[in-house]
Amino acid sequence: MVWCISCQQPTSSDTSKIKKGMIKVAILYPNTEGKTFDMDYYSNKHMPMVAGLFGDSLKLYTIDKGIAGRTPDEPLPYVAIGYFYFDKLSAYHNSFGPNAETILGDIPNYTNIQPIVQISEVLH
Amino acid sequence: MVWCISCQQPTSSDTSKIKKGMIKVAILYPNTEGKTFDMDYYSNKHMPMVAGLFGDSLKLYTIDKGIAGRTPDEPLPYVAIGYFYFDKLSAYHNSFGPNAETILGDIPNYTNIQPIVQISEVLH
Repeated sequence: MVWCISCQQPTSSDTSKIKKGMIKVAILYPNTEGKTFDMDYYSNKHMPMVAGLFGDSLKLYTIDKGIAGRTPDEPLPYVAIGYFYFDKLSAYHNSFGPNAETILGDIPNYTNIQPIVQISEVLH
Repeated sequence: MVWCISCQQPTSSDTSKIKKGMIKVAILYPNTEGKTFDMDYYSNKHMPMVAGLFGDSLKLYTIDKGIAGRTPDEPLPYVAIGYFYFDKLSAYHNSFGPNAETILGDIPNYTNIQPIVQISEVLH
């Protein structure tokens, strides 16, 4: 056991929960022409709502707000990317399945973008 | 000050360093037809080499290994995604600029994919 001075510092979310081998589901919103995206609704309503539906199976979620491409001349690839972390793939399926209609039905409330869904394993 | 029992548990990397407002540079490798990707070289040689070049400006890096799309029927969007975290955008530019040739020159050693570069702000 050690004294821990830094544990209580504010983090983006409790990112110390991220462990190698976790399942990470990324929802990417491509920066398409004519797109609309309400970042306020997405970060303050949609994501907390989804987190509530997923409950304890969800270990944490994070949000990236897109600001630039590789150079100032290149377009921004994604307006936003949301990430959900689970211990196992089955935990994601069991969380998403019963709530799919509610979650997908909320998307038109903040965007007209068709998101890309990527399921990954945290390798490092 | 509090007793901390959990601080020493192994994490993917030191993800507790992730803070709201940080700059997160994502390098996404689309799962294109005819692609090649050496995950071993990427995770054990390329990323540590880049991290070494970036030095103290780099707060941490993480790696996602793509395993599936939204459903088993849909193709995997990205073979891998690497993330670099910096305190400020200028820290990324100052780290990447002088090392661009070395970093980009190493890509053909593990893949023939043209990666997508996304610069984001950690919103949550």
